[in-house]
Amino acid sequence: MRPISFEIKKKGPGLARAGVIITPHGLIETPAFTAVATKADIKGIDVTQFKELNLQTIISNTYHLYLSPGEDLVEKAGGVGKFMGFDGPIMTDSGGFQVFSLGAGFGKKISKFISAELDPTAAGQQGNASGSNSAPPTIYDEDLATSHGKLAIVDEEGVTFTSHVDGTLHRFTPERSIEIQHKLGADIIYEFDECTSPTADYDYQKEAMDRTHRWADRSLKAHRGNIKKNNEQGIYGVVQGGQFEDLRIESAKALAAMDFDGYGIGGSFSKEDILGILDKVNRKLPEEKPRHLLGIGEPEDIFIGVEAGIDTFDCVLPTRNGRNGGLYTKQGKIQIPNAEYKEDFTPIDAECACFVCKNHTRAYVHHLFRTHEMLGPILASAHNIYFLSTLVKQIRQSILDGSFEEFKDSFLNKYQK
Amino acid sequence: MRPISFEIKKKGPGLARAGVIITPHGLIETPAFTAVATKADIKGIDVTQFKELNLQTIISNTYHLYLSPGEDLVEKAGGVGKFMGFDGPIMTDSGGFQVFSLGAGFGKKISKFISAELDPTAAGQQGNASGSNSAPPTIYDEDLATSHGKLAIVDEEGVTFTSHVDGTLHRFTPERSIEIQHKLGADIIYEFDECTSPTADYDYQKEAMDRTHRWADRSLKAHRGNIKKNNEQGIYGVVQGGQFEDLRIESAKALAAMDFDGYGIGGSFSKEDILGILDKVNRKLPEEKPRHLLGIGEPEDIFIGVEAGIDTFDCVLPTRNGRNGGLYTKQGKIQIPNAEYKEDFTPIDAECACFVCKNHTRAYVHHLFRTHEMLGPILASAHNIYFLSTLVKQIRQSILDGSFEEFKDSFLNKYQK
Repeated sequence: MRPISFEIKKKGPGLARAGVIITPHGLIETPAFTAVATKADIKGIDVTQFKELNLQTIISNTYHLYLSPGEDLVEKAGGVGKFMGFDGPIMTDSGGFQVFSLGAGFGKKISKFISAELDPTAAGQQGNASGSNSAPPTIYDEDLATSHGKLAIVDEEGVTFTSHVDGTLHRFTPERSIEIQHKLGADIIYEFDECTSPTADYDYQKEAMDRTHRWADRSLKAHRGNIKKNNEQGIYGVVQGGQFEDLRIESAKALAAMDFDGYGIGGSFSKEDILGILDKVNRKLPEEKPRHLLGIGEPEDIFIGVEAGIDTFDCVLPTRNGRNGGLYTKQGKIQIPNAEYKEDFTPIDAECACFVCKNHTRAYVHHLFRTHEMLGPILASAHNIYFLSTLVKQIRQSILDGSFEEFKDSFLNKYQK
Repeated sequence: MRPISFEIKKKGPGLARAGVIITPHGLIETPAFTAVATKADIKGIDVTQFKELNLQTIISNTYHLYLSPGEDLVEKAGGVGKFMGFDGPIMTDSGGFQVFSLGAGFGKKISKFISAELDPTAAGQQGNASGSNSAPPTIYDEDLATSHGKLAIVDEEGVTFTSHVDGTLHRFTPERSIEIQHKLGADIIYEFDECTSPTADYDYQKEAMDRTHRWADRSLKAHRGNIKKNNEQGIYGVVQGGQFEDLRIESAKALAAMDFDGYGIGGSFSKEDILGILDKVNRKLPEEKPRHLLGIGEPEDIFIGVEAGIDTFDCVLPTRNGRNGGLYTKQGKIQIPNAEYKEDFTPIDAECACFVCKNHTRAYVHHLFRTHEMLGPILASAHNIYFLSTLVKQIRQSILDGSFEEFKDSFLNKYQK
């Protein structure tokens, strides 16, 4: 039997389903919120708090852990779960998103189809680079000649990129990403995909998607070929295709035909591009396998995602917003450092049962932010994670009860007012 | 009956005693470690963690809370305990230490007995300034003419000082400090004292001490004169006298003659100056009242302090060291960011039962510090507070058991090796 299995308990409305993902480290009751533990920790939150924050599972980043402390050290520690002291289910992403977004500085400047002056296969890292150079590599940097700066060079075999920490040159291939993820040892790992820029045109998106499918096949072979790891870890494919509906559907079909244990919907730099076509994409994926929406998961997105057939969500915004003083409430997001909360002795969210809302007032959290106390970001992150985890838990219950629509209307009516 | 009382359960060796301070917000079993919650929070630690960190009580800083959020807001919140969500016993200091150390930049440059060009009584804050100018004010700044910079001007009535945050001018008098502390509402408050520089000479230390005694009398009158607050809060006097044994003894005698509920040993910029004469000082203080050593409390100091008759200790070092990666272990302090801990998969302290040691390895905490994750300082601070609170708790038990000497020898033998 595969290490990852999925049971659907109740379906509808739309593609919504309440289910259970069974992993070597326990169950994930879905829909579920997956907190982001980039460097094997959620920023400001200790593993001992996960249970009271209603957190079942987390996702760690292969790119970051590869750079520091390195996958070999994590393997020596017994895998990322043992390393961080968490005995529940864990995912690792493939590193693709960070390689492209941190390596190339997405959103700043991107040039494509520039002939490589660097031989990407000559980069320092090992990783099954074959040396074949069938297509001209894609270079995400205009200043290649003058500095390594931010750089990601794509060729058929993989990606050569610079570390965002120290500018050193590294190389990932599908095989290398899987090798690293085997050492990190998460319950669920991802194929290595190319994350395209939202400004890339149709032709490039198609080319990148086709390459991602070849990488998907190679990732899958690398995983299934390692009998031990294949028995311990499940692997998800990643649907790409940018903002183009036909490409997304083509990608879903192509990946559905491969023997993955689940699917991620990836490459979502702009959530507007993907949320509208999620339902159509998910209809092409096998119903009996779990689906994860990569990098999107604010309250309003979660309702859309669930109804379109998404089972798990991850998102850095609860902690990133929290660190900047942005807090979720049933009435929408508030900026706690704002002057209006200085003498507000009510909880952040009067209906919330998290330890922050049970013990502290808006005035206190406001004070912590205004006086630059690290406890402010800590409490804000904890509240936001609890808020989202609990919302998704309530959504699950509403699917089981057959009251999803009512719950959604009642929540969004207050939240978006 | 006074709001603060003290019961001694067992005495010896030396002046050591195990006791209980009874406060309006519960008991403090002594000896006890008092964590520093400068701005109504322990840096990186939430009140919900106090119990598991063996923390009975905290001390907050009047100077910081006066500047932000202001004592009126804290009073509206119901006092500092309610404001921060802590229902246990709390102390506030008088603000004296911060007025002098943050206002004047102690240790940088100090000039004394410069005639004031500023009229200190003209400063913006209210506070019972009488306007009398019997002695030339003491100015802790050479550049007064060119900038407010860091400044503390002492006159008979009080101190005029600049905020370390924005350089604005403020004024504390004994009456004003007590008024602020009444609004902050802690169980134990302190008289307003002058904290002298360790470089001050004998004559100046004596002059400052005599002034502090007059301020002690005024603080006490201001407190006892407020019937409501006098029934809710206890007040401690503060022994001064710098590094001079005869002055310290004179100070202890003078304060012992006043009707305080307990005593702080203050002005300890250099712990070497005070630890050696603590026993002699405490012998002059009434045995039946609790004694607090202000600002000193690392493991080796605590043994000396307890044997010399100290009941409670506060110290910023557990959290300050923690934030910088310094961790207490039974074998002494370690710097967790050092390379030697990169692959050390043992707990920070193998004998420690704190949640950090139960769930995490040195390698993990090392990784968090090396990758600049805020969870590193959080975990380090939590461990250090637990370490000290628990050490003091064990010391208390050893007094009760009559095994203090053995416990001390066994601890220090390992700790200082």
